[in-house]
Amino acid sequence: MTTTLPTIQHLINGQLVSGGSRSADVFNPATGQVEKQVLLADKLTVERAIISAQAAFPAWRNTPPLKRARVMSKLKELLEQHADELCALITAEHGKVLSDALGELQRGIENVEYASYAPELLKGEHSKNVGPAIDSWSEFQALGVTAGITPFNFPAMVPLWMWPMAVACGNTFVLKPSERDPSSTLRVAELALQAGLPPGVLNVVHGDKEAVDTLLQDPRVKAVSFVGSTPIAEYIYAEGCKHGKRVQALGGAKNHAVLMPDADIGNAVNALMGAAFGSCGERCMAIPLVVAVGDDTAEAVIAGLKTEIAKMKVGPGTDASSDMGPLVTKAHFEKVKTYVDQGVKEGATLLVDGRGVQVAGHAAGYFMGPCLFDHVKPGMTIYQEEIFGPVLGVVRVKTLQEAMDLIDAHEYGNGTCIFTRDGEAARYFTDNIQVGMVGVNVPLPVPVAYHSFGGWKRSLFGDLHAYGPDAVRFYTKRKTITQRWPSAGVREGTVFSFPSSR
Amino acid sequence: MTTTLPTIQHLINGQLVSGGSRSADVFNPATGQVEKQVLLADKLTVERAIISAQAAFPAWRNTPPLKRARVMSKLKELLEQHADELCALITAEHGKVLSDALGELQRGIENVEYASYAPELLKGEHSKNVGPAIDSWSEFQALGVTAGITPFNFPAMVPLWMWPMAVACGNTFVLKPSERDPSSTLRVAELALQAGLPPGVLNVVHGDKEAVDTLLQDPRVKAVSFVGSTPIAEYIYAEGCKHGKRVQALGGAKNHAVLMPDADIGNAVNALMGAAFGSCGERCMAIPLVVAVGDDTAEAVIAGLKTEIAKMKVGPGTDASSDMGPLVTKAHFEKVKTYVDQGVKEGATLLVDGRGVQVAGHAAGYFMGPCLFDHVKPGMTIYQEEIFGPVLGVVRVKTLQEAMDLIDAHEYGNGTCIFTRDGEAARYFTDNIQVGMVGVNVPLPVPVAYHSFGGWKRSLFGDLHAYGPDAVRFYTKRKTITQRWPSAGVREGTVFSFPSSR
Amino acid sequence: MTTTLPTIQHLINGQLVSGGSRSADVFNPATGQVEKQVLLADKLTVERAIISAQAAFPAWRNTPPLKRARVMSKLKELLEQHADELCALITAEHGKVLSDALGELQRGIENVEYASYAPELLKGEHSKNVGPAIDSWSEFQALGVTAGITPFNFPAMVPLWMWPMAVACGNTFVLKPSERDPSSTLRVAELALQAGLPPGVLNVVHGDKEAVDTLLQDPRVKAVSFVGSTPIAEYIYAEGCKHGKRVQALGGAKNHAVLMPDADIGNAVNALMGAAFGSCGERCMAIPLVVAVGDDTAEAVIAGLKTEIAKMKVGPGTDASSDMGPLVTKAHFEKVKTYVDQGVKEGATLLVDGRGVQVAGHAAGYFMGPCLFDHVKPGMTIYQEEIFGPVLGVVRVKTLQEAMDLIDAHEYGNGTCIFTRDGEAARYFTDNIQVGMVGVNVPLPVPVAYHSFGGWKRSLFGDLHAYGPDAVRFYTKRKTITQRWPSAGVREGTVFSFPSSR
Amino acid sequence: MTTTLPTIQHLINGQLVSGGSRSADVFNPATGQVEKQVLLADKLTVERAIISAQAAFPAWRNTPPLKRARVMSKLKELLEQHADELCALITAEHGKVLSDALGELQRGIENVEYASYAPELLKGEHSKNVGPAIDSWSEFQALGVTAGITPFNFPAMVPLWMWPMAVACGNTFVLKPSERDPSSTLRVAELALQAGLPPGVLNVVHGDKEAVDTLLQDPRVKAVSFVGSTPIAEYIYAEGCKHGKRVQALGGAKNHAVLMPDADIGNAVNALMGAAFGSCGERCMAIPLVVAVGDDTAEAVIAGLKTEIAKMKVGPGTDASSDMGPLVTKAHFEKVKTYVDQGVKEGATLLVDGRGVQVAGHAAGYFMGPCLFDHVKPGMTIYQEEIFGPVLGVVRVKTLQEAMDLIDAHEYGNGTCIFTRDGEAARYFTDNIQVGMVGVNVPLPVPVAYHSFGGWKRSLFGDLHAYGPDAVRFYTKRKTITQRWPSAGVREGTVFSFPSSR
Repeated sequence: MTTTLPTIQHLINGQLVSGGSRSADVFNPATGQVEKQVLLADKLTVERAIISAQAAFPAWRNTPPLKRARVMSKLKELLEQHADELCALITAEHGKVLSDALGELQRGIENVEYASYAPELLKGEHSKNVGPAIDSWSEFQALGVTAGITPFNFPAMVPLWMWPMAVACGNTFVLKPSERDPSSTLRVAELALQAGLPPGVLNVVHGDKEAVDTLLQDPRVKAVSFVGSTPIAEYIYAEGCKHGKRVQALGGAKNHAVLMPDADIGNAVNALMGAAFGSCGERCMAIPLVVAVGDDTAEAVIAGLKTEIAKMKVGPGTDASSDMGPLVTKAHFEKVKTYVDQGVKEGATLLVDGRGVQVAGHAAGYFMGPCLFDHVKPGMTIYQEEIFGPVLGVVRVKTLQEAMDLIDAHEYGNGTCIFTRDGEAARYFTDNIQVGMVGVNVPLPVPVAYHSFGGWKRSLFGDLHAYGPDAVRFYTKRKTITQRWPSAGVREGTVFSFPSSR
Repeated sequence: MTTTLPTIQHLINGQLVSGGSRSADVFNPATGQVEKQVLLADKLTVERAIISAQAAFPAWRNTPPLKRARVMSKLKELLEQHADELCALITAEHGKVLSDALGELQRGIENVEYASYAPELLKGEHSKNVGPAIDSWSEFQALGVTAGITPFNFPAMVPLWMWPMAVACGNTFVLKPSERDPSSTLRVAELALQAGLPPGVLNVVHGDKEAVDTLLQDPRVKAVSFVGSTPIAEYIYAEGCKHGKRVQALGGAKNHAVLMPDADIGNAVNALMGAAFGSCGERCMAIPLVVAVGDDTAEAVIAGLKTEIAKMKVGPGTDASSDMGPLVTKAHFEKVKTYVDQGVKEGATLLVDGRGVQVAGHAAGYFMGPCLFDHVKPGMTIYQEEIFGPVLGVVRVKTLQEAMDLIDAHEYGNGTCIFTRDGEAARYFTDNIQVGMVGVNVPLPVPVAYHSFGGWKRSLFGDLHAYGPDAVRFYTKRKTITQRWPSAGVREGTVFSFPSSR
Repeated sequence: MTTTLPTIQHLINGQLVSGGSRSADVFNPATGQVEKQVLLADKLTVERAIISAQAAFPAWRNTPPLKRARVMSKLKELLEQHADELCALITAEHGKVLSDALGELQRGIENVEYASYAPELLKGEHSKNVGPAIDSWSEFQALGVTAGITPFNFPAMVPLWMWPMAVACGNTFVLKPSERDPSSTLRVAELALQAGLPPGVLNVVHGDKEAVDTLLQDPRVKAVSFVGSTPIAEYIYAEGCKHGKRVQALGGAKNHAVLMPDADIGNAVNALMGAAFGSCGERCMAIPLVVAVGDDTAEAVIAGLKTEIAKMKVGPGTDASSDMGPLVTKAHFEKVKTYVDQGVKEGATLLVDGRGVQVAGHAAGYFMGPCLFDHVKPGMTIYQEEIFGPVLGVVRVKTLQEAMDLIDAHEYGNGTCIFTRDGEAARYFTDNIQVGMVGVNVPLPVPVAYHSFGGWKRSLFGDLHAYGPDAVRFYTKRKTITQRWPSAGVREGTVFSFPSSR
Repeated sequence: MTTTLPTIQHLINGQLVSGGSRSADVFNPATGQVEKQVLLADKLTVERAIISAQAAFPAWRNTPPLKRARVMSKLKELLEQHADELCALITAEHGKVLSDALGELQRGIENVEYASYAPELLKGEHSKNVGPAIDSWSEFQALGVTAGITPFNFPAMVPLWMWPMAVACGNTFVLKPSERDPSSTLRVAELALQAGLPPGVLNVVHGDKEAVDTLLQDPRVKAVSFVGSTPIAEYIYAEGCKHGKRVQALGGAKNHAVLMPDADIGNAVNALMGAAFGSCGERCMAIPLVVAVGDDTAEAVIAGLKTEIAKMKVGPGTDASSDMGPLVTKAHFEKVKTYVDQGVKEGATLLVDGRGVQVAGHAAGYFMGPCLFDHVKPGMTIYQEEIFGPVLGVVRVKTLQEAMDLIDAHEYGNGTCIFTRDGEAARYFTDNIQVGMVGVNVPLPVPVAYHSFGGWKRSLFGDLHAYGPDAVRFYTKRKTITQRWPSAGVREGTVFSFPSSR
């Protein structure tokens, strides 16, 4: 019967193609039904994509940056026109509510927009007279074939963090998206072709470890960008580097929001609701932990959160009245549930329990309601590990310094934020905290597209962050030229006869 | 009878409006017929535009740069969609052939495109710890109401050098285009409204000296950009500065092309034909003078030019087979003719005489054929002055140094170029020549939109060039902030009670 | 008897020389005695300096930036070594206490240090493939002869804002310092020669309006930097621009400090004491006005100020126990005294009266003690005008918005600051206030040397600020080169024979 | 007897200390005598250095950049003052002639100079209004403890590529120089302390693989810079990345100089002599291969080289008349000799044989004379491998394209250059060649200190180059802050009472 299901193919050299004898099921998480099959590329198929990218490189590299940038401008228009279609694909395979899908897409479009600034971004540094009549300048040249490996949680946005800047810089690209929700990723790539990207400049292959390892080991691939969990990120970084590539590998997170006694609690509660439960908490910039400074602060924020949680509606992402959709897979649902069980067992106080939520007409969907813990403490599993579910924990501390010590002791350092009205608290926090992206009264301090995204500690391996200005440096290599001209007699007039070579 | 002619109105606060009791005729230079009337704004009308711009400023200045930039992206799309309509308007009033009009429009679109990079371009400089726990940063804030005064020769492009960057930087704008061919300028402004520019952000007033002087003297106008002839530019600069404004005033040109003995003469001839006769020579980056180094070089280039000139077709700009259209006005036609007469009188050798050209069916059009002089010499009127017509002169010199001395002695320093194959000649020329825009084997070295346009000497008054990176600095003022936070006790925990103010 | 006084000469082409038949007295303001005579240059003498600068330009312009920068590094060392000597000269002629003189010198040294970064600062922008095989880049070329006209209040520092960056950029310079205290300025220039600056690169001429007008009108001078009062700044800007130069003219100030109810009053009082009375208030970044938000705030700050003022010691600058020295001249002393009289007459409450101060043994010195007014109001002369003396006024308002409206309504917009602990108040203030340099809990927000100095409104005429990054743009002109190479057959191997020209 | 030899110690926390039970001989290569002993650090000793660096980090990181920069300025002065002493140390242990040692030192000083620009280089990017009233900026924060591992061939310069920029950026550093010639490296570090670097900010440990592996594996070390051979570079990169660090590892080279038929052969010969034989060819930017385009070109360059080689004098580096000193060690001498033997065996034509050179009075020195091969071909060992000796090979090709294909097929891509007078050949070469540092008529295109140094292909592992602008990015991590301020009522005046907390 599965033969009648639609099959999601690879996109190689501008064509949708088969490749690999294996495939995987693609589910609708709101119904628990298998809806499509996705092909899983074998080594040969990935190599076909690499070969296609390599063949497309010389012409694309020589295409003036302005022309490359204009493909990005055109793609931006097409993405805006196709927003409904793309959001429907995201929701159908990932489960998030449509407004969330649109938010993701818009953030992705901003990255396409930034890539359209390429002529400005690719300017080199020119020095006159580094010595007498000697000039020197640097160029930022494309690397060749580059690759990206992206996670399920933002199937539209995270790929758009990578390949638009890569190709705007003159590279060609092989993208391996998550095999759980690949359709929107693929559709965006098709629109890029329609926008004028030559065949082979962007290739999409679906797959699993075989595909990943091929990309990591093939000498024709010059750079790899990855977003996923920390253990895999660490593997990707070590393995890619071992094969001489440049690698940026973004991993997990456990973002703490610090709530100061002087904060505007009402605003903070509103901000935290979205940050904790938006997209079911399946975001590397989600806030799963609130660190309340002082018990009064803790009581106030808990009261506010309980009120707001009571108003939340869990349901299918396609229903406009839903605030939160299902988790992405059955396995992930079970895993999140186990975390909640474990939290109770380890002594945290479960104030709101979302484990038993029922969504009418969607009994087989992977729905879980919002969970709220109080008295979460370092050492508990729900404190240490990234849950990636709708589970928010409150940690109580006495001072800002205690809050910061907690954050700095955690293995992850992706994002964090502080709610306060006090300039000095904000400056001390932002200056010293060992975290890459910091918000002041901003719960999800995801940098805008013209800045760069990246965590510290075990949240990112590599030295350059994703998208924004860092992406230009990641996707180009510096060439430095030093030039002096000896006289050929033309200037001085000693060679004066008409050249005979014509 | 003129009451039946269409009237070109002002665009103030998003509305087409009347204003001023005077008007001027707008001719079709290919027929010599009056086709439209353009209103000429009086002081009050210009002040209405300034008031409109000032009222729109606070909200526009606070609009995030990304949103302002997106209006520019959208305008780019609209300009591409309306290209035929705009080119027809340009040709109908200016006379240039349609392909030339399209070239102009495309260059203008590139400036709109650059303005869409605003979020990147407006980044300030941030310094941590300029002292212990003291930070400092600079912001580039909008000026307020800014103004532009533009010439007839590029009615679409030159305004787009100015206002897109001005408004992308957060300013509002009053534009006074040339009253000879204002329709395309106005149409572009209407499209900007359609693209989402709020009413009052861009205003267009037609007019003459009364309008100009109002803009120069009104204290609400903070900056003035001007492109035109040098005497007017000098007046604009002195008068605007006297009223405390920042001013950039671009003036005239007399661009020399140096032809070296080792140059590829065939390529150079092709390049020179377009540079000398394109748009009838009515361009500040046109090449009206070839400086041939060596008599052999002179003979060769003259031979090539004569051959190519013989193939040229002069005719109405709307005729796709025309290579060159009419001059812009009857008065200008007479002036150019007088220059040619004067050249003959002063002893230059007129090799090709375009004065008597006849275009069938267009007896009243302002057509002049290409003219070619040999033995043009410094001191001759046709050497010293900007003709702005299809008149190319050959100057003969013995060495590159002699060519450069000529160029440096000329009052203008807008553009120049050298044709050579020799690295050292090119480096010596580009380094030392007292000219702002220099080409190496590129006849019209107009900088691309992500660089900046400006001449030296009496070709530009002011310290920042037009469009590109310089435009960001021209249309913003620097604000530098130095910040230190004293403790309010929140960080140390001495203030701990819940704030009572809620 | 005055014939035996030392005479301060001009420094032209590396030599101390006479020039001009007029001279002026140089006083010691602590004693009221004439100590030296300074020559006043006539037109011919200034022209000799210009000629010297022009002659030195070609070689200096071609000196690699790194070598020019190293002269600045060496000068920095020499200034540090000669600090005591220079401070003594400053105090002897200006009157400020030695610690103040040292502070000024150190700030000046920082500007020399910044100029030593020239190789980095002068990098141009390089774009590959602006079209197929066409490259384009911009160079920031020196202007030629540049000039500076500087005030009495910072005889060491303000000249160092100008000429180090000008010469590091490859220009040569003519400096006209204040004729009231020229010795330290001249000594610094001598040290620059000793550091390796070639003769003629920096020239110093003393003088008055005749010298100034010569600099403004001579066509060989390409740029003028000025710091002084607003009426003169306005004249300099209009006159220099009329002669086609680029000009930056910094004028007067009336800097308000806003004190919010939540501010740390103790810190603010300490900060205000230095900002109001340091260098006798003869600073364009001094704080002569405190705007207290709320009467409680006003009472608290006044109480603190009165306590601190009572501890101040007025005396000769050479006495290490003096907190404040004399005013610069007898005339200025009288002028400041008249302002205080006028303040009383117009209804402000004079809480501390410094008019009758007596310094033992210095009866003829120009000493005035600190004055403190309460209830200063807009419209009073002491509110509107720049006093440039040790006079601090307290203005009382009810809200931050009222404070900001006052500041924005004042003709000057040089500096301002806010004392608060509140992030939002600081952000709203710094974003919206119409002032160029803004402090948050920093009373004198003079930008560090790697940022730029400049006010808004009638505090600065021109579009680029002094020193820092803006100085690079002010002291250079952009040249944009567009380059394409035609084949000479060498690359393809069609020209293969050994060149015959050798 | 060796117990009486001087012992070279480690520099840890500002003290010269012992550490490790092993040591190694340090030879004078001109005499073949052991002159000193150098301690080899064990794991514990390296960890002491790391601990020292970590302890020094917090205070150093908080030291304002300007103060850190000034230590670099002061160090520059000290290095200039101690140049003779440092050059003597270099020559005594490395062997190169004193003028070469001075050249190396000067290049190193330029890197110190660049590090002194830190306040400018560390500026972050500031964006106002990324959303309504939301600001965002990036800071480039120090990493913590960083490390460098440097080769024997530039004991003064290569360490100065690394640690000055690392510490100027706020990091602390552990340096492991080559154990063959460590004295000058150590002396420079002592001078840095004298210049004001706090103890522990820079530590020097001598050692071998045990020390290297400790640096690579210790989690407290955040970044590793390496310069050495490619196999080791590859190991360093893989091993360091495996331990989650950022790594830049610069490896070997085989730089080709392309000689075009139109080149100025006389100039080229002079340039090649220094590039091939300077410092005995022990430079990663040396030119060991000349690719002559055309046999005429080959014959001409060979004739010139033979003439010049005949004039060369080989002798001890301390003798001012020596052009070339000894190789660094006995083992290296044997290795180079074997390469020459192999070249003969594989069929290259040995035109000049330096194997038998005798230096009077220095029979035990490791002297080899210049060797010149003709008809070197790809596949030969002397073509493929890095010899690091005074061996120059001529390769003959027919076209530029053939030369470029050779270069691109080689495993290394460090430096290359072209000698030509032709703009198009130069542009085509520099644009397309797969090499990181490219010269046009410049034989050793080592980028100046304000650009960055790095090869392509297997000459560099990592994504950022050494020194210059790239070093800022390598030695800092980006932190991005997003800030919004909620109202605390202070601005609006709703909170008005005097704060009670004081």
